[in-house]
Amino acid sequence: MIIVLKSGTPEQEIQRINEEFHKRNLRPEKSVGSSKVVFGLIGDTALVEPSQIYQISPFIERVKRITHPFKRASIEFRNGKSSEVIVSTGNGVAVFGHHCPLHLIAGPCSVESEEMIVETAKHLKNMGVQFLRGGAYKPRTSPYSFQGYGESALDWLASARQATGLGIVTEVMDTEDVEKVVEVADILQIGARNMQNFSLLKRVGSQKKAVLLKRGMSATIEDLLMAAEYVLAAGNPNVILCERGIRTFDRQYTRNTLDLSAVPVLRSLTHLPIMVDPSHGTGKAEYVPAMAMAAIAAGVDSLMIEVHPNPAKALSDGPQSLTLERFKRLVEEMSTISNFFGRELQKPNLTATLQRMYSKHTTKIPSI
Amino acid sequence: MIIVLKSGTPEQEIQRINEEFHKRNLRPEKSVGSSKVVFGLIGDTALVEPSQIYQISPFIERVKRITHPFKRASIEFRNGKSSEVIVSTGNGVAVFGHHCPLHLIAGPCSVESEEMIVETAKHLKNMGVQFLRGGAYKPRTSPYSFQGYGESALDWLASARQATGLGIVTEVMDTEDVEKVVEVADILQIGARNMQNFSLLKRVGSQKKAVLLKRGMSATIEDLLMAAEYVLAAGNPNVILCERGIRTFDRQYTRNTLDLSAVPVLRSLTHLPIMVDPSHGTGKAEYVPAMAMAAIAAGVDSLMIEVHPNPAKALSDGPQSLTLERFKRLVEEMSTISNFFGRELQKPNLTATLQRMYSKHTTKIPSI
Amino acid sequence: MIIVLKSGTPEQEIQRINEEFHKRNLRPEKSVGSSKVVFGLIGDTALVEPSQIYQISPFIERVKRITHPFKRASIEFRNGKSSEVIVSTGNGVAVFGHHCPLHLIAGPCSVESEEMIVETAKHLKNMGVQFLRGGAYKPRTSPYSFQGYGESALDWLASARQATGLGIVTEVMDTEDVEKVVEVADILQIGARNMQNFSLLKRVGSQKKAVLLKRGMSATIEDLLMAAEYVLAAGNPNVILCERGIRTFDRQYTRNTLDLSAVPVLRSLTHLPIMVDPSHGTGKAEYVPAMAMAAIAAGVDSLMIEVHPNPAKALSDGPQSLTLERFKRLVEEMSTISNFFGRELQKPNLTATLQRMYSKHTTKIPSI
Amino acid sequence: MIIVLKSGTPEQEIQRINEEFHKRNLRPEKSVGSSKVVFGLIGDTALVEPSQIYQISPFIERVKRITHPFKRASIEFRNGKSSEVIVSTGNGVAVFGHHCPLHLIAGPCSVESEEMIVETAKHLKNMGVQFLRGGAYKPRTSPYSFQGYGESALDWLASARQATGLGIVTEVMDTEDVEKVVEVADILQIGARNMQNFSLLKRVGSQKKAVLLKRGMSATIEDLLMAAEYVLAAGNPNVILCERGIRTFDRQYTRNTLDLSAVPVLRSLTHLPIMVDPSHGTGKAEYVPAMAMAAIAAGVDSLMIEVHPNPAKALSDGPQSLTLERFKRLVEEMSTISNFFGRELQKPNLTATLQRMYSKHTTKIPSI
Repeated sequence: MIIVLKSGTPEQEIQRINEEFHKRNLRPEKSVGSSKVVFGLIGDTALVEPSQIYQISPFIERVKRITHPFKRASIEFRNGKSSEVIVSTGNGVAVFGHHCPLHLIAGPCSVESEEMIVETAKHLKNMGVQFLRGGAYKPRTSPYSFQGYGESALDWLASARQATGLGIVTEVMDTEDVEKVVEVADILQIGARNMQNFSLLKRVGSQKKAVLLKRGMSATIEDLLMAAEYVLAAGNPNVILCERGIRTFDRQYTRNTLDLSAVPVLRSLTHLPIMVDPSHGTGKAEYVPAMAMAAIAAGVDSLMIEVHPNPAKALSDGPQSLTLERFKRLVEEMSTISNFFGRELQKPNLTATLQRMYSKHTTKIPSI
Repeated sequence: MIIVLKSGTPEQEIQRINEEFHKRNLRPEKSVGSSKVVFGLIGDTALVEPSQIYQISPFIERVKRITHPFKRASIEFRNGKSSEVIVSTGNGVAVFGHHCPLHLIAGPCSVESEEMIVETAKHLKNMGVQFLRGGAYKPRTSPYSFQGYGESALDWLASARQATGLGIVTEVMDTEDVEKVVEVADILQIGARNMQNFSLLKRVGSQKKAVLLKRGMSATIEDLLMAAEYVLAAGNPNVILCERGIRTFDRQYTRNTLDLSAVPVLRSLTHLPIMVDPSHGTGKAEYVPAMAMAAIAAGVDSLMIEVHPNPAKALSDGPQSLTLERFKRLVEEMSTISNFFGRELQKPNLTATLQRMYSKHTTKIPSI
Repeated sequence: MIIVLKSGTPEQEIQRINEEFHKRNLRPEKSVGSSKVVFGLIGDTALVEPSQIYQISPFIERVKRITHPFKRASIEFRNGKSSEVIVSTGNGVAVFGHHCPLHLIAGPCSVESEEMIVETAKHLKNMGVQFLRGGAYKPRTSPYSFQGYGESALDWLASARQATGLGIVTEVMDTEDVEKVVEVADILQIGARNMQNFSLLKRVGSQKKAVLLKRGMSATIEDLLMAAEYVLAAGNPNVILCERGIRTFDRQYTRNTLDLSAVPVLRSLTHLPIMVDPSHGTGKAEYVPAMAMAAIAAGVDSLMIEVHPNPAKALSDGPQSLTLERFKRLVEEMSTISNFFGRELQKPNLTATLQRMYSKHTTKIPSI
Repeated sequence: MIIVLKSGTPEQEIQRINEEFHKRNLRPEKSVGSSKVVFGLIGDTALVEPSQIYQISPFIERVKRITHPFKRASIEFRNGKSSEVIVSTGNGVAVFGHHCPLHLIAGPCSVESEEMIVETAKHLKNMGVQFLRGGAYKPRTSPYSFQGYGESALDWLASARQATGLGIVTEVMDTEDVEKVVEVADILQIGARNMQNFSLLKRVGSQKKAVLLKRGMSATIEDLLMAAEYVLAAGNPNVILCERGIRTFDRQYTRNTLDLSAVPVLRSLTHLPIMVDPSHGTGKAEYVPAMAMAAIAAGVDSLMIEVHPNPAKALSDGPQSLTLERFKRLVEEMSTISNFFGRELQKPNLTATLQRMYSKHTTKIPSI
């Protein structure tokens, strides 16, 4: 249930209303927009009559039930305004969201050595990329496949961060590893296979780093939003949703079916920022550029793309990785089309002013 | 199997080679490119040794087997060159293909009355659209739903054609109706449910009008190309392939899952022109513009979009139809992004010169 | 909408009620059960108030709306009673239905020669099978694959019928072929790829032979029932529904995913007889026996199984065909398990009495 | 790679061969059949030539590569013989496997109170059931749904075990909970959503209790076997595979599509015992009995069925739970059909002799 206050409601009254909610055991979550304040109420609101709420204050403009099963993740919960996920990196603050610049996350599937990841990071930074992805813990179908270099790889990612200032995105697969990964990662990735690992969702929901939640292979849009709801409900509002291809009957020429309509669909349902991963979505490097461009045209907020200095020798997912050369061209193409849509590609450094505005690491801006 | 001749092979030699193939019961299909002539051989070539072919003439540069089960539809069959489907309309000739302008086919799901379809056609023409779609025969899940106005609707489409010069695209559902539909339609549509109605494919393959083949709901890319192969093998080379959404596990917010990666995948496999139908692909008008833009960014050659003067009162598929106003804005957006990709939106009238070049109705240009 | 009359309603009153419905433009379809008469009303009943119906006669016991989109096919339409499809063959009458013997339809995918099909039919008859299947017209993914021997194959099937008295089941793919196929077939098969070929459904609905309707690869249970509704609405009540595997993400070890839960689900939704085809359902002969047994345990009314005298040399679908030897053992196993469930395997000859009762070829028994 | 020794190979020679493998860094796993000894070799055997292996001993009869990506789970790894998973309970030892009695696991979705679970367990025991299922930790799509009573529920399950001697089957969702769950459970369940939670698979693979691995909603048969391989490779050979329905395009009348062909397919690919869960497979109590019977006819080794004393008031999954009364009848039906297939329903108490034979808790019987 959300409660919209009238423009110009006095601060004191807002506070009083807040307290009234608490008295009724309705946990309010306040968002402050440019002109209006909105309360989202969580808890057993099924029995609460809107008329009772209106009686609390004459400054209450509108009371609306959220009919979706996802509450905090729903666009209604923020009265139609998109939210922003702020991540501070060595190169400045990045803001993911609907009306923000387009962000690129690039890098190899697996972190294969310190030299490899640091070198790759440097190249990516030169291309204007702000985030480095790389797997330390790898979810592999076979126990006999390379499982990632684990903690060593985390150290190498830390080196890459130090060397370049790039933000680090890496997957966490186990509640027991969350602490270790948090030390290195700026964004924690929950992989498709763990999208409904609810223990893990609760754990990453109870820490502050931003969470990149990948859609499960057979997860509906609603399943994805309910998984995000787990993280939000556990206290972490910094969730980015990522479409990465779903499993369908046709797996001959592509590894998955990239569901690009998820972009406008999610936009109409949730305030959270949206990402697309065309590398896993198609599974073949040759189809990645076309789908990256299409994702931008569909309105996505950020892209995750696998890039490897030598795809033919990659320890995992070589066939879907772009070379540095091909990726460099793609960055240019993406930058141009992004500008066409009135959206800049992320800048490696925001102005000092903006830095100060968003000074606290991964804190959601208190506005809608 | 394809045979590429060397540049500068004399015409006489080309003819002799052609005859040699015939003598060996290998039905050759010749395509003439800017510098090279290519023969595609159909028939039982499994037992033919390339070495035997090379012995036919010293002008044979390369002999290559087509490993895909689709032969005539494969990109190898035309030595990597895209083909073009030419359709002449009252407003000039339209050429569908990879390096051609982007084409729009728009109109209501069903033809509901003569006035409605003529008025709609006029509006569409004013927006610069060159093709009108409208169903006379409607494949409906329920026998109790509106089944289309049949022959009357064909007459009304003919009126719309006469009034505006727009090319007519309409579905044929039954071998027995092909003749009647051919009289009115400039492009015959085979619907998703009939994609593997092989009798119908053979029938439309034995006439000359262009065929718009929609991908079946559970058809793989290969199934689609094999269905096209039926039309090509029956003698009609004018096939346009249309992705219109596949059936997946998630049908809550969209009617189908639009598989946009089909665009680059098909491009890598076939020489045939590619179309996307975001209206059926999503099933909701609000998601159509984003997916239309994404399809163009993915590299599609043409788009089919449902437009209705009053979607709320449409006899079928109202929820996925755009209003004329919304569509008009979308045409402008599509035109701009199309130009961005170096591809003009089709012009309603080609120059007289081009007209003369492509004078014969639906004849494939004899070049690659 | 269905109207149940009280037990003992006089015949004259039943007739009067029937006329009243006609006066109101509600097309009534009467079914006579052991103790009660039921009218199914078709037409625009949305605006008809049950209270108005009750006023027609005090003998009306109950008025109930059918909420499913399928009306004639729904179990409510016959007040919960299963229907029976009667097919007369050279060996007597076969009755397909819930409380009837289990029927087997067996034979090769394609009719390959007169000798082959006649010999196979004789073997099958000796095993106690009553129906022979065999394709004259074959829907093949590739235009270059064997397409069936067409009319010649129909003649050979006629020979097999004459030689053995077996009922003939064969596919019709085109409205234009219906007449020819009707001359030979006792049951017309509509294949999975044509399940939504609505022109064909209407055509087979307008003749009297029983129709075996196979579920499309991506057809939901509701789609299947709506396709049956087309045949029923066109006037042919003799429809048998066949589950033959759906298309899912896993196609590595089986060709399709046999959806056996379709058996109890259909039982709860429709009065029509149910068949399972484990040959297409699995695509591999080694899995057919287990799934045939499972289908019987799930409560199916009939089974269609591909059998070939020499699967390794079959012109189509060899890998999923059982040898005559393996099938013979399976018939024994199916007979035993069928008896276990209190259901005999069909007898090749019914008694003379039963013959007289069901004397008219493919007429639905006028009872529920 | 597997190595089959000739019948009558002396024990000393077997040991010598074993040592030779170790010397070559090929980790051998020995299985002893009725007449033959088989070694499965794990490790990098791609470079090992069979001819080198034959040179080790003249008692080596056959050397065969396992071509499947799953090695330990493959039927070849045990030379075509099924394995058995032994679980000792308060009522005696249960042996899961192809040639063993049929086992039933029954109980509520969630453990709702001590009284409820103990009472239910008593009823189930009286019906002859040997295993009680009940969720302490519940994976729920919504964070606002009941999440299970956790450790309290584990205590209540312990009470039920003490009161009835039934074996306990309960899900573990998090590596951190494994220890706690192991104390109470006789079989650890890995739920469908965690089938590719590889950290969890490794953890349950490193302890000794039997593991019930449920197939993921979009997991292929191969994915399932690869997940089992994780547990086997981590050292725990006691894995039971459970088909519980896959996600397909049709979710209207059933929650999932129960893939019963998985039973014969798995039988042909793996030596591991197979289970079917028709409750999750269909999601509706009314379809459970038919599918339970079908699963037995398909050859399954055990069934998991949700039973609740009052399904209408269940805290989770009420619609798919059978009442105690309905389940009691089903047990009788399953017992009869199981006998029909020459397979007894599990007996609550095995003889003392058998007890002694299988004295050690969850030890795999040293034979094939």
